[in-house]
Amino acid sequence: MHFKVRAAAKEDCKEISRMIMELAVYENMPDQVKTSHEDLERDGFSPNPFYECLVAEVPDEHKTKDASSSLCVGGQDTLGSSTRQVKRLKCCPNDGYTVVGYALYFYTYSTWKGRSVYMEDLYVMPDFRGKGIGTGLMAKVAQVGVEKQCVRLQFSVLEWNKPSLDFYIAKGAEDLTAKEGWHFLRFHGQSLDTLAKEAPKD
Amino acid sequence: MHFKVRAAAKEDCKEISRMIMELAVYENMPDQVKTSHEDLERDGFSPNPFYECLVAEVPDEHKTKDASSSLCVGGQDTLGSSTRQVKRLKCCPNDGYTVVGYALYFYTYSTWKGRSVYMEDLYVMPDFRGKGIGTGLMAKVAQVGVEKQCVRLQFSVLEWNKPSLDFYIAKGAEDLTAKEGWHFLRFHGQSLDTLAKEAPKD
Repeated sequence: MHFKVRAAAKEDCKEISRMIMELAVYENMPDQVKTSHEDLERDGFSPNPFYECLVAEVPDEHKTKDASSSLCVGGQDTLGSSTRQVKRLKCCPNDGYTVVGYALYFYTYSTWKGRSVYMEDLYVMPDFRGKGIGTGLMAKVAQVGVEKQCVRLQFSVLEWNKPSLDFYIAKGAEDLTAKEGWHFLRFHGQSLDTLAKEAPKD
Repeated sequence: MHFKVRAAAKEDCKEISRMIMELAVYENMPDQVKTSHEDLERDGFSPNPFYECLVAEVPDEHKTKDASSSLCVGGQDTLGSSTRQVKRLKCCPNDGYTVVGYALYFYTYSTWKGRSVYMEDLYVMPDFRGKGIGTGLMAKVAQVGVEKQCVRLQFSVLEWNKPSLDFYIAKGAEDLTAKEGWHFLRFHGQSLDTLAKEAPKD
């Protein structure tokens, strides 16, 4: 199937927001999504953006048959408690989608090696998998990074997601948690606020 | 001991570069450091910087006695193969340091929660540990992040570094690798170049 990978524009944020929710539904955690397409517009399309994004687009003749069909991935039951999800369903167009995947990434920095790029999300709608779109998106992130002199492309994968882990490792990625024992830590909510209040006065 | 935490200036890059090397020596991997202070200047102090940095400074009366003393952390034997290290030793001032720690961080993005901050390095020179400087630096990163509406402060820790892991967890951090099974993956070198070449043509 022919597809195109291009840099996302501000106008794509509703589509990206829809696919972020689809991915969360697939992971049975739609309630966890707190970002709106307005947040994505503000954070990705103003000076000093927090992220960049690529989208994969298919020609009109391949667009999805029903705008809401992709939202059944995780089973309708998982949608019950998500008012955000219901709201989004109502405002979707009904004539199908041509934007069928996205890769969201940002630049990071290694004090040993320098510039790096981190891929936060990689998603392709279920009906469009196995056609090279995921690899195309990921390879484009790598290319964009290399053009910016990044020497690493990094990302995180859940260990139960064995097919994805195997796929990335077959492509040449190193699993640094398995190899070197890196653990990923996070302060958030109350622990983040408490820590911030310990900052020394200027 | 009185200390001050402040945003790094371009002029601090030689000091930051020195401490990056000290940390690598402590980890027995000085040969892994490929960044120079010129790289740090270019990547952190131009439009759209790849990172931000805080430094901890002590008053003149507390400065280190010998500029090179801190470089013995990992044992002189580890320095043998590092010409970069030897070069740096030669260009160090001999009247001690007042910049005794740093925290290097950058902004990242969660598609579920929005803006986040990631702390790449946190380092305090051995003679200045146990005085609250590390907590001060980390708390300041949290404060800077919260002021930018970041909802997470994230970082990675090696699992053999149990004292650090315990310290962060006691402060309220969650270990997401232990709790949710997140693995950290990386393409670099040949695997990154090969992947980048798979990018679909525009």
